[in-house]
Amino acid sequence: MNKASRLFCPALVTPKNAVVKQTEQLSRSQKLLTELGLVKSGSNGTYQIMPMAQRSVDKMIDLVQRNMLLAGGQKITLPILTPTNLWKKTGRLDGDISEFYMVRDRSGKQFLMSPTHEEAVTAMLATTSPISYRQLPLRLYQIGPKFRDELKTRFGLMRAKEFLMKDMYSFDVSEETARETYSIVSAAYDRLFKQLEVPFVKVNAATGMMGGSVSHEYHYISPVGEDTLLQCSSCGFAGNSEVLDVKPGSPVSCPSCKGSDLKEVRGVEVAHTFLLGDKYSKPLGATFLNTSGKPQSLVMGCYGIGISRVIAAALEVLSSEQELHWPRLLAPYDVCLIGPKQGSKEQPAAEVIENELLLQVGELCGQQELLHDDRKELTIGKRLLEAKRLGHPLIIVVGAKAAHQGSPKLEVHLSKGEKLELDINEALKLIADYSQHKESLLKGIFPQDTQERISDSVGHQL
Amino acid sequence: MNKASRLFCPALVTPKNAVVKQTEQLSRSQKLLTELGLVKSGSNGTYQIMPMAQRSVDKMIDLVQRNMLLAGGQKITLPILTPTNLWKKTGRLDGDISEFYMVRDRSGKQFLMSPTHEEAVTAMLATTSPISYRQLPLRLYQIGPKFRDELKTRFGLMRAKEFLMKDMYSFDVSEETARETYSIVSAAYDRLFKQLEVPFVKVNAATGMMGGSVSHEYHYISPVGEDTLLQCSSCGFAGNSEVLDVKPGSPVSCPSCKGSDLKEVRGVEVAHTFLLGDKYSKPLGATFLNTSGKPQSLVMGCYGIGISRVIAAALEVLSSEQELHWPRLLAPYDVCLIGPKQGSKEQPAAEVIENELLLQVGELCGQQELLHDDRKELTIGKRLLEAKRLGHPLIIVVGAKAAHQGSPKLEVHLSKGEKLELDINEALKLIADYSQHKESLLKGIFPQDTQERISDSVGHQL
Ligand SMILES: [Zn+2]
Ligand SMILES: [Zn+2]
Repeated sequence: MNKASRLFCPALVTPKNAVVKQTEQLSRSQKLLTELGLVKSGSNGTYQIMPMAQRSVDKMIDLVQRNMLLAGGQKITLPILTPTNLWKKTGRLDGDISEFYMVRDRSGKQFLMSPTHEEAVTAMLATTSPISYRQLPLRLYQIGPKFRDELKTRFGLMRAKEFLMKDMYSFDVSEETARETYSIVSAAYDRLFKQLEVPFVKVNAATGMMGGSVSHEYHYISPVGEDTLLQCSSCGFAGNSEVLDVKPGSPVSCPSCKGSDLKEVRGVEVAHTFLLGDKYSKPLGATFLNTSGKPQSLVMGCYGIGISRVIAAALEVLSSEQELHWPRLLAPYDVCLIGPKQGSKEQPAAEVIENELLLQVGELCGQQELLHDDRKELTIGKRLLEAKRLGHPLIIVVGAKAAHQGSPKLEVHLSKGEKLELDINEALKLIADYSQHKESLLKGIFPQDTQERISDSVGHQL
Repeated sequence: MNKASRLFCPALVTPKNAVVKQTEQLSRSQKLLTELGLVKSGSNGTYQIMPMAQRSVDKMIDLVQRNMLLAGGQKITLPILTPTNLWKKTGRLDGDISEFYMVRDRSGKQFLMSPTHEEAVTAMLATTSPISYRQLPLRLYQIGPKFRDELKTRFGLMRAKEFLMKDMYSFDVSEETARETYSIVSAAYDRLFKQLEVPFVKVNAATGMMGGSVSHEYHYISPVGEDTLLQCSSCGFAGNSEVLDVKPGSPVSCPSCKGSDLKEVRGVEVAHTFLLGDKYSKPLGATFLNTSGKPQSLVMGCYGIGISRVIAAALEVLSSEQELHWPRLLAPYDVCLIGPKQGSKEQPAAEVIENELLLQVGELCGQQELLHDDRKELTIGKRLLEAKRLGHPLIIVVGAKAAHQGSPKLEVHLSKGEKLELDINEALKLIADYSQHKESLLKGIFPQDTQERISDSVGHQL
């Protein structure tokens, strides 16, 4: 069990009438994250993740790993420092390099603080002893920090200079099997985004600097998004305006249902998949031995998920101006239990119920999923307000009514303002159901309506 | 279950008579790690962790987190990029800075690729709203990559330029409570090193560039160690030669048992604890409000464990020239199951046993802890040799004797060359016991003799 009195959650207290120098554009969820002490601004577009937000990050990592395992992924770690000479070979230093952090070691050798690892992983395969076609396909992934010296950092974690990514690289014998790999990994992405229960759209994408032939982006729709998408309000179809190649201002009818015109919406790109072909394997010499024993270029794919960005963007979509709302699987805690105020009339009787609940709730949802707001020097009202702003999915108040002899009642607050008055067994049932729902989600079992709602947008792609 | 046929483990095949350009000094375990394809050399002292070694890294991370939780630790993430101006304030850029990687962003601002985070975490606390004495002690930790531009990288992962660390920072109201925190975190370290079951010594240490008053180092004794320790062969006492301040060559009698002279041994420093006092909090202005409501400097401690180095050094201590041996809790897999050779006489009957075992073993030790060597095109002998070199704790061979009708027998190889012939139930019992032992270790329950052996060295410090 976690105690609120011990939790490091350095809330930003702005003195009244203070002139706050706003150096950066913050979206509403990022403002809440900062004010509530879940994230602190480091220097120039870097962020410090505080304990409560770290729990969410670790849950997201766990969820990603489960899905990577199902997609046949093998976890590795590549160094953050990649020699720039590898990037010279693939031509990726020929364009605009102003977003790259570059550093020299004491011998003068130059490195990139890697924004991505196509070169590094391909060069690694090029220098292993020859891989046989029998060992393919191969799907390697890692989870780690990436770096991009953005001209303009915005919206906190959503576009930071240092961010956490999951990147997977796949290696196949042919374009055909690479497409199979692409479907398998894409299915894992689809499942992951369904598990997060945040509406998303998947669109055909331009391949841009990554090169390659097939590419999709996963977006959360939000006014703070930096990409322009065109979406059909009838059938849910969505496309990237770059790819659809439409003139600004001119109406375009939906290519899927033909029923209505596409409307511009803003999207936050949270994941991206690419079929790369031999764009990297050829210049870097990464080959396998084919059935005739001859070396042949590996056919590659790459697949990224912005771990910190998914959390930030999901919060932006779900939250209100006043309250954070978390995807169920990413909430820092499932349950927040608020005990009676110190010195109140009801304290002794309510504390008996409180202690009983601490044990039973901890058993139902797991000790680590229970946050006990034990700051009894604070009123219940003040603690409840904070708990709601933090967006705990289930807030249980053990207050005056819990002291009723014979029929003690608990006040249970669900996110989005719903409030229930329950007896102990009803409250425990609610928690058990909640944990059960989480378990189902983790297993990839979705309620009927989620499946339909989401397949609507996933189904309709360019 | 994991299949050996799919596992990416790029063994280094050196052509016979090839002249290998050895650019780096490798110890025996690092040589095995590289040859067997668990670790690949990146560029200039960086390493790529391959899937099997990654499993060990992830287990170590899990073990560290369990112990940090018990020590009241709260997990956070600090950016890798730390502004150099913070380090100027504490004077740590005044000395030799040749080991630091420094990088400028597009605005010209200079950053360190952090080798450690005292400045960053202290500056963070200095810029939160004032902390009350009621919120202390505070123990924040993170797990992430660190950077050091070593003049000479050696022994692979043991001294790499980019390495994985757990670093914890503690904040207290006074020297007295900081010492309590120091004992609590030290107890967590002692437990962790006992759980790893590798003999270690804990010595008083010089505080060096970190500053502060009290400091201990945890060492594994190995000829490849870079520190000189003085150890008593009678009582186990050990000290750092820097701290003992003895003249080279002159015999020193043991300050603990007085019974014999100290002998020089080499130690690999795998963890370090410091009581820092206000060395960082004062210059950076990190204060708390004391009982009178007045700001007062926080009293700090810091505590590091080299995640990648512990694994590398433990392997160096335990392994032979020919075979890796893992700490039980860090072995990539608990069990390796080798099936019959394709086309052999025994194949059909042995495969019945094999399939039954796959199910039952997976249930006993967990599916992820079972590696199935399904490469049936290879002889059992070749696969067994590789499995032994990789150091799987339990290797089960389902060969000719498994095809005996009525009394099928399995060959079970334990690490260090022990070999047993068991029937199925006996083998399953062995696996269950092994898993049970792991569970006990994770709970901090140690067999009597381990406890004594280790408390010997832990107990005797300067
Ligand atoms: Zn439509
Ligand atoms: Zn002695």
